[in-house]
Amino acid sequence: MPFRDECGVFGICHQEEASRQTYLGLYALQHRGQEAAGICSGDPQGLHLHKAQGYVADVFTEAALDALPGDAAIGHTRYSTTGGNVASAAHPFLIHGRFGQVALCHNGNLTNTEVLRSRLIADGHTFTSPSDSEVLLALINRAQADSLEDAVVAALREAEGAYSLLILTEDALIAARDPRGFRPLAMGHMGATHAFSSETCAFDLVGAQYDRDVEPGEMVIVSRKSAEVRSRFPLPKVQAKPCVFEHIYFARPDSLVYGRSVMVARREMGRRLALRHPVEADLVVPVPDSGVSAALGYSEQSGIPFDFGIIRNHYVGRTFIEPKQTIRSFGVKVKLNPVRHLLAGQRVVLVDDSIVRGTTSKKIVQMVREAGAREVHMRIACPPTTHSCFYGIDTPKRQHLIASYMPLEAITAFVEADSLGYLDLADLEGCMGDDGTGFCYACFTGNYPVVPG
Amino acid sequence: MPFRDECGVFGICHQEEASRQTYLGLYALQHRGQEAAGICSGDPQGLHLHKAQGYVADVFTEAALDALPGDAAIGHTRYSTTGGNVASAAHPFLIHGRFGQVALCHNGNLTNTEVLRSRLIADGHTFTSPSDSEVLLALINRAQADSLEDAVVAALREAEGAYSLLILTEDALIAARDPRGFRPLAMGHMGATHAFSSETCAFDLVGAQYDRDVEPGEMVIVSRKSAEVRSRFPLPKVQAKPCVFEHIYFARPDSLVYGRSVMVARREMGRRLALRHPVEADLVVPVPDSGVSAALGYSEQSGIPFDFGIIRNHYVGRTFIEPKQTIRSFGVKVKLNPVRHLLAGQRVVLVDDSIVRGTTSKKIVQMVREAGAREVHMRIACPPTTHSCFYGIDTPKRQHLIASYMPLEAITAFVEADSLGYLDLADLEGCMGDDGTGFCYACFTGNYPVVPG
Amino acid sequence: MPFRDECGVFGICHQEEASRQTYLGLYALQHRGQEAAGICSGDPQGLHLHKAQGYVADVFTEAALDALPGDAAIGHTRYSTTGGNVASAAHPFLIHGRFGQVALCHNGNLTNTEVLRSRLIADGHTFTSPSDSEVLLALINRAQADSLEDAVVAALREAEGAYSLLILTEDALIAARDPRGFRPLAMGHMGATHAFSSETCAFDLVGAQYDRDVEPGEMVIVSRKSAEVRSRFPLPKVQAKPCVFEHIYFARPDSLVYGRSVMVARREMGRRLALRHPVEADLVVPVPDSGVSAALGYSEQSGIPFDFGIIRNHYVGRTFIEPKQTIRSFGVKVKLNPVRHLLAGQRVVLVDDSIVRGTTSKKIVQMVREAGAREVHMRIACPPTTHSCFYGIDTPKRQHLIASYMPLEAITAFVEADSLGYLDLADLEGCMGDDGTGFCYACFTGNYPVVPG
Amino acid sequence: MPFRDECGVFGICHQEEASRQTYLGLYALQHRGQEAAGICSGDPQGLHLHKAQGYVADVFTEAALDALPGDAAIGHTRYSTTGGNVASAAHPFLIHGRFGQVALCHNGNLTNTEVLRSRLIADGHTFTSPSDSEVLLALINRAQADSLEDAVVAALREAEGAYSLLILTEDALIAARDPRGFRPLAMGHMGATHAFSSETCAFDLVGAQYDRDVEPGEMVIVSRKSAEVRSRFPLPKVQAKPCVFEHIYFARPDSLVYGRSVMVARREMGRRLALRHPVEADLVVPVPDSGVSAALGYSEQSGIPFDFGIIRNHYVGRTFIEPKQTIRSFGVKVKLNPVRHLLAGQRVVLVDDSIVRGTTSKKIVQMVREAGAREVHMRIACPPTTHSCFYGIDTPKRQHLIASYMPLEAITAFVEADSLGYLDLADLEGCMGDDGTGFCYACFTGNYPVVPG
Repeated sequence: MPFRDECGVFGICHQEEASRQTYLGLYALQHRGQEAAGICSGDPQGLHLHKAQGYVADVFTEAALDALPGDAAIGHTRYSTTGGNVASAAHPFLIHGRFGQVALCHNGNLTNTEVLRSRLIADGHTFTSPSDSEVLLALINRAQADSLEDAVVAALREAEGAYSLLILTEDALIAARDPRGFRPLAMGHMGATHAFSSETCAFDLVGAQYDRDVEPGEMVIVSRKSAEVRSRFPLPKVQAKPCVFEHIYFARPDSLVYGRSVMVARREMGRRLALRHPVEADLVVPVPDSGVSAALGYSEQSGIPFDFGIIRNHYVGRTFIEPKQTIRSFGVKVKLNPVRHLLAGQRVVLVDDSIVRGTTSKKIVQMVREAGAREVHMRIACPPTTHSCFYGIDTPKRQHLIASYMPLEAITAFVEADSLGYLDLADLEGCMGDDGTGFCYACFTGNYPVVPG
Repeated sequence: MPFRDECGVFGICHQEEASRQTYLGLYALQHRGQEAAGICSGDPQGLHLHKAQGYVADVFTEAALDALPGDAAIGHTRYSTTGGNVASAAHPFLIHGRFGQVALCHNGNLTNTEVLRSRLIADGHTFTSPSDSEVLLALINRAQADSLEDAVVAALREAEGAYSLLILTEDALIAARDPRGFRPLAMGHMGATHAFSSETCAFDLVGAQYDRDVEPGEMVIVSRKSAEVRSRFPLPKVQAKPCVFEHIYFARPDSLVYGRSVMVARREMGRRLALRHPVEADLVVPVPDSGVSAALGYSEQSGIPFDFGIIRNHYVGRTFIEPKQTIRSFGVKVKLNPVRHLLAGQRVVLVDDSIVRGTTSKKIVQMVREAGAREVHMRIACPPTTHSCFYGIDTPKRQHLIASYMPLEAITAFVEADSLGYLDLADLEGCMGDDGTGFCYACFTGNYPVVPG
Repeated sequence: MPFRDECGVFGICHQEEASRQTYLGLYALQHRGQEAAGICSGDPQGLHLHKAQGYVADVFTEAALDALPGDAAIGHTRYSTTGGNVASAAHPFLIHGRFGQVALCHNGNLTNTEVLRSRLIADGHTFTSPSDSEVLLALINRAQADSLEDAVVAALREAEGAYSLLILTEDALIAARDPRGFRPLAMGHMGATHAFSSETCAFDLVGAQYDRDVEPGEMVIVSRKSAEVRSRFPLPKVQAKPCVFEHIYFARPDSLVYGRSVMVARREMGRRLALRHPVEADLVVPVPDSGVSAALGYSEQSGIPFDFGIIRNHYVGRTFIEPKQTIRSFGVKVKLNPVRHLLAGQRVVLVDDSIVRGTTSKKIVQMVREAGAREVHMRIACPPTTHSCFYGIDTPKRQHLIASYMPLEAITAFVEADSLGYLDLADLEGCMGDDGTGFCYACFTGNYPVVPG
Repeated sequence: MPFRDECGVFGICHQEEASRQTYLGLYALQHRGQEAAGICSGDPQGLHLHKAQGYVADVFTEAALDALPGDAAIGHTRYSTTGGNVASAAHPFLIHGRFGQVALCHNGNLTNTEVLRSRLIADGHTFTSPSDSEVLLALINRAQADSLEDAVVAALREAEGAYSLLILTEDALIAARDPRGFRPLAMGHMGATHAFSSETCAFDLVGAQYDRDVEPGEMVIVSRKSAEVRSRFPLPKVQAKPCVFEHIYFARPDSLVYGRSVMVARREMGRRLALRHPVEADLVVPVPDSGVSAALGYSEQSGIPFDFGIIRNHYVGRTFIEPKQTIRSFGVKVKLNPVRHLLAGQRVVLVDDSIVRGTTSKKIVQMVREAGAREVHMRIACPPTTHSCFYGIDTPKRQHLIASYMPLEAITAFVEADSLGYLDLADLEGCMGDDGTGFCYACFTGNYPVVPG
C-alpha cells in the first residue's frame, strides 16, 4: 500500500474522439498517479496540449477537451516524485524542433538521465524541468537521423533503464518499450482505431479489445496518414525483465499485465502464502484494497473464513483537515476502520501486499488489536522488500526499507504481530509461471538487470 | 445500489474541537449523502453556521472550521431529493426566535409536512425552503411551552413520520428519535464528551465509544452548561419499526446499526439466500460494494468460490465527461469493470443488495455476460421492492419499482438473467432476529407503520 | 471616500430577459456594494433565487442566469455591515408564506428594527438572519390584510426609517419608498418594460429611459399579469428628506439622483467651496475618484489650474497581499499614487468629498507633501461630518467622526494641512436648490428626521 | 484605447522580500498586460518559478509568494497576442542549461525571431512555445562564451528588434535594453536594493527612488553575491528610437517614461491639438481614461470648459455576460456611459488618444450624439496611425488601420464626427522635445528603425 507508481500512459489513433477516449483511458489508470494529468492531441493544424496538477476529473473540463481536437492523442497520469515545481514536470512534454512538433509521455525511469542530461547541456541544450522525458525528447531531436522514427531509435539506443513511451508527431503515434520491458504497455484496437495503455482496464472502459503487449525492445509505429502499422525491434536483444511488482501491488486487479490476470496472480500468491506460512486462526482479513485477492487465496487454501475485518473509506481525498489534537494513528484511521464485531476475540490472519518502512503495518496491527483481535498474524504476499527500485517505482531509499536492516523476528516485533510470514521468492516465481529469469525481482534480491545510474 | 439515503447527522458536546470532530464525523458518514454538508457550532457568543453544496471535504476548509468555534456542534450531510434550489435546503437550519438561536438537522422525512406547513402558513409563519426541518423549527418556536425543551416535545407530538434529530441551542444539545425509530441514531462518549451519530463508524473515526442507541421515542438532552445528561420519553409509546434497509444497503458495513453489526447481518442474508435459492455454479460474484458481504455469505453457505469478478473504480466522482458517441452501458462501465479472465466460461452467481427499476441490473448482467460468463444467476439479498419509502429514503414512485408490476419470471427475463432469486421476507426477519414486528418492511410489504401524508 | 453605502437595487418587469437585464443593472450599481449580490426572477413556475457573496461578475455565471428564467426580476448588490455570517444576509430574501412566494430587496435601514423584531419573535416568528429585510417580510406576511398589496401597506405603516424596496410576487412587481424618501429610487421604461433602479446609470446600460422617481411615500404596483401600473400613497404625508450624501459621495457622477445630475451638483459644490475658501495656489488636485467633479468646479471658479496630481490604480481588488515589512501609508499608496512631477514645489489645493475619521486624509496629505508639494490646502466638498447616519450609510459611531470632537484648527493640524476648508451648510443647500428643508443633512447637523432606534 | 501593450517587467535584487516586492511592482504594471503573470525568485537553493494565466492578484496567493523565497526576483505581466496555448507562453521562462538555471522575462518583440528560431532548430535546439524569449534563452545558452554575461552579450548581438530584458541567474540580476531603446526600462534603488521596472509607477509603490533609465544598448549587471553593479554597452551604437506611443497611450500617467512625465507630455499634446485644430464648442470631453490628460490640455489652451461627459465603469472585468438580444453598441456602453445632462444640446470636443480601426470611435461618437450632443468634434492626440508596430505593441495588420486606407474626410464621415483633427507629427515631436530623430514614429510614418522580420 505505501508504494507509489509514477505513471500511467494511454494513446489512441484513428479515433474521431481521440482526446475524450484518452480522458477515459486516464480515468481508468488514475490509480497509477494522482498528482497531475495531461493530454496532447493532434489534428491537421498541429498538436494541442493541456496538462495540469490534479486528478483527471479536475484537470479536464468539457472546454479543455474541446480544445484538444484531432483523431490522435496521448495522455499521462502522474505521481510526482520530485518536490518543488511539480507543475513543470507534468506530462506529456511537447517540443517544437527539427521534426516539427513532437509530444512524449513516459512511464518508467531512465537510469542514465544525469549522464545524458549533462552531455546534452554541455552540447548546448536546455531543459525546463528535471524530467527524464525532456532528456528523451532532446536525444530524439539531436539524433544523427533524417527521420523522426530513426531519431527515436537513435535516442532509445542511448537511453538506459525503464520506459514505456508514447510519442505523438504530426505523422505518427509511436509506442516503445525498453528492452527489459520493465514497465507494462499493452496494445489493442476497436475497428480501425489503435490504442495503447499501461493496463488493459483502460481498454475495457473505452471498449477496445486487448491484442497483445508491445514487446520488450519493440517499437510500434502507427501512421496517422494511412492504415499502416509497423513493428520494429531496433535495440539489442536482452533477457526481458518486466516488473513483478505490477502484479503484486500497482496494477488494477481487473487488468491483464504482461498478458496475465493480475487478480489470478494475486490469488495464487495468497494460496502459496497459506501453504508456506500456515497458522491456526479464525479469520483472514485483508488490508484493503491491495491485500484483498491474496487474502481470498489464503482463505481458500487454508479453509479459514475470509471477511472484511477492515473497511476502507473511499471518500478520502487529497485534502483532509486533521484535528489539532492529533488522535493516535489518525492517518491510518481516516482511511481504514476495523470492524470490532468481526475482530473481537478472534485470531486474525492479516494479509497485505508488502511492507516498506513498517510504520503503516505497525499502525494497522495496533488498530486491529485495539478492535479486539486476540492474535494478529501478518502475511505478506511478496518477499521482503530490501532494495530500492530505479525503474519507475517510488520506493524510499534502501536504508528506509525495514527488511534491509532488520531480520524477520525484529520486523515481527516492530509491527507487533504475533507472527509474520513473507511469500518466498521461489513461490512468487511459481505464481508468475517463471523459472526465475523472466521478471525483475530486484527489490527483493538487489540483482538489478540494469545498473542504476 | 440505486437507492439514495437522505442524510447523516453527527453532533458533539463538551469537546474543545467540536466543529473539527463533527467534520470528521461527517467524513465518516459521507456515504449517506454527498450533495451538501453543514455544521453549526456554538460558543458563548452564540451559534455559528457554515453549509454549502458539495462533499464534506470541499465544503469545509481550515478557515471555515476556524469560523466555527465552540465546544458543541451539530452537522449534516445530505442527499438532495428536491430539484431546484438545493442551496437553500442544506442543513443545519438556524433560526433566531423565541428561544434565541436554535439550529436543527434531521435525518428522515415527516409524513405530515404539508398539513403542518399549511397550518403554520395560515398562522402567519414563513419558510425559506420546502424542507420539513424548517417546519419542525417553526413548530418548536410556536409551541405552547415556556422552555425550549418543552417546545421541542410539543413539536414532536405534532410531527409524524421519521426523524432522527439533533438540535443545538445556547443551552443544550438535544437528540431525538421518532417513536417508530425509523432512522438510526447512536450515542457514545469519550471522556466527558458526548457524541451522537447516524452510524457508529463516525464514532470509530473520532475515537468515541458507542454506548447505546437513542431509543425510539426518546429525547436526550445534554446540557451545555453542566455535566447533566437527561433522557425523556415524552411521546406515546408505539411498536418501534426501525428501517431494515439500513442493514440491507445504506449503512457502512463497519457500523453498528440498532446495536447490530451491519456486516454480520448482510453475511447472514447471503447465507440464507444460498439456502433458499441454491444453484449449480462456478463463482459467486458481488456487485461491489453493496453486494460484497451477502456474496461472501452465499459463497460460504454454498461452497461456491467467491471472487471479485467485477471491479469498482473508486475515482469516479461527481463530474464525468462522457464521450459524445455514447458507448453502450457506459454509465455502468465507468464505475464497474468485469474481470474477463475470472468470468469467461463460468456459471456466475451475481449477488446484489436489491433491484429497484431493474435497468441497472440488466446492464450489469449484460456486462457480465459480454465478459464471457456462461450463465448468470442473480441473487438479491432482500425481498422484491414493491413499495415506495416515505420515511427518508429516496425511492422512485411505486410505478417505477419493477417488482411492483412484474412477476418474478418477467423480471428474470427483463434483466436477462438465467435465474433470479430474492431473499424471503421470513428469512430477512430471521437475519434480523425479528419475529416480524420489530422492523419496518414497508418497501417489501406495503404495511406502512405510519400513514404516508 | 471612506463611506460605504449599503445597497443598490434594480428591478424589471415585462422583459423577456429579466434576469440578464437585472444583472446588467447590478453591474452598473456595483459601486453601491461589493460584498454580495443576488437576483430573484419569476416565471409561471414561481420565483427563482440566486445570491452569493462576491462581485456581481463573480456571483453570476451564464448557468446561474439561465437558472433564473422569467419576465420579471429584482436584484440587489450589497455592502455588508454586520460581521459574521455574511452569507445569510445577502438579498433578495425569498419566503413561502400566506401570499405564496414573496421576494424582497431593500436599500436603507429601518430605525425600529429591534422593536419590530422583538415583537415578531414574541408573536412566534423566526428569522434566519439579523436583516431588517426579513423583518419587513414578516410584517407583510402577518399583516391584517387580505391581499399582498394591502399587507405591504400595513407593513410599511409599521416600519420606520429608510427604505427603497422592490418586492416580487407571483402577481406583481412592487416598488416602494419611505415617506422621507431617504434613499433614491428611480423608475423608467423601454417599450412595455418597466424598470426601477437606485440610480439612473443602470437605466443607461440596459437602454431604459428614466421617467421619474418613485416619490417619497409612494408605492408603485406593476402587474405581472397585465399592463396595469398603479400608484398609491398609503402612508401619512411628511416632509421629504432625501439623503444629500448621495450627491456628495455615493452616487455615480453620471446618474440622476432625485432627478438632478450628480456631476452638476458636485461641480457646483466645488465652485461654492472656492468662493467660500479661496487660497493662493498653483494647482487644484482631486482625491480620485470622488473628489474629481468638485475639484473641477473649484478650479473653474478659482482659475487655478486643475490636474490629476494623484492617480488611482483601478486594478486594486478585494485581495491584496501586503509586504510583511509594512511600508508607511501602504494602504493608501496601493490605490493612490502622487504624480511627483506635477506636485513638486507646488502650492496644492487638495479636494476631497468628505472627512470621516481623518486618518486617510492625513495619509493623503503626507503622501502629497512627500511628493514635493510646497503647501497643501485641503478643501472638503461638504460640511463637517459630525453625526452618524441611521438611514442606510455605514458611517462609524459618532465618537470616531473627527469633526464631532475636534474644532477646525485641530483637524487641520491632525491632517497636517496648511489650511482646511469645508463647504458651508448653506452653500450645500444652495447647490441642491434647497431652502434648507428638502434634504436630510443629519450627518452634518444631528437633526434626524426620524428618531434613530 | 484599443491598443494592447504586451508586457511589463519588474526586477529587484538585495531585497529580503524580493518576490513580494515584485508582486507589488507587477500590481502597479497591471495595465501593461492582464492575461498572465509570473515571478521567478532566487535564493541559495536555486531559482523558483510561479506563473499562470490571470490577473496579478489572482495568480499570486500568500502560499505562492511563500514558495518564491530569496533576495532577488524578476516578474512579468503579459498581454497574450498569440491564440492557442497561452499557458505555455507566460513569462518568466526558466531553463536549466550550460550556465545552470537562467530565467528571463521580456518586454518587446524581436524582429528576427523566425530566422533565429529556424537556425536554432536546425542546430538541434527545441522550444516549448512560440515565444521569442525562448529564442533569447537558447541564444544565450549556445553562445560561444565562457561566462553567462558574455553569453548574454553574444545573444543580444544576434537579436534584432525590441527588448527590455530582465535576466536572473544564480549569480546576478541583469537588465538589458535594445540599442534603439524601443521599450522603456527604468532603474532605481532603496537603500542597498536595486530595482528595475518598465515604468516608474512601480517604484512609487514599492518605495524605490527612480535613478535613471537603463540606456538604449546598455546592460546593467547587479551581482547577487556582492554589492557590485556594472554597466556595459556591448552593442554597436545606433540612434536611439524609444517608442513614442508609451507617452501617447500605454504608460500610466503618473509614470516617468524615458525620464519624462507621461502626464505632462499628454497635456502638452492636448494643448498643441487645440492650437492646430481649434473649434467653436461648449465642452471638452475626454474618452476615459486615456484621453483625459490631452483633453485637459485642449481645454486649457482653448478655454473651452472641460468635464467628464463620459463616465467609465471600472468594475468591468474579464468576464461579462452580454444579454442575448444584443443591445446596440453594447460593448462600448458597458464600459462607458455618456452623461446626458452635460452633453445635451452641447457642441462637444471629444478627445481620444488614437484611432485604430475606427469602429470604437464611431460607437463612441454615436453614443455621445444619442446623449444629446449637438455637434461632436473629434480630436486625436497623435497623428493618424497608418502602420503596424513590430516592436512589442499589438496593433492590427496594416490593412485594418483605418488611416492606412482612408483619407481624413472619409474617416470623419465613417466615425460620424462633425469634424476630426489629428495631432501633427511635428507637434508630437515638439511635445516630446524632439528634433524628429529621437523617437520611433513608425506607426505614423512607416519609417521602421529596424527592418521588420
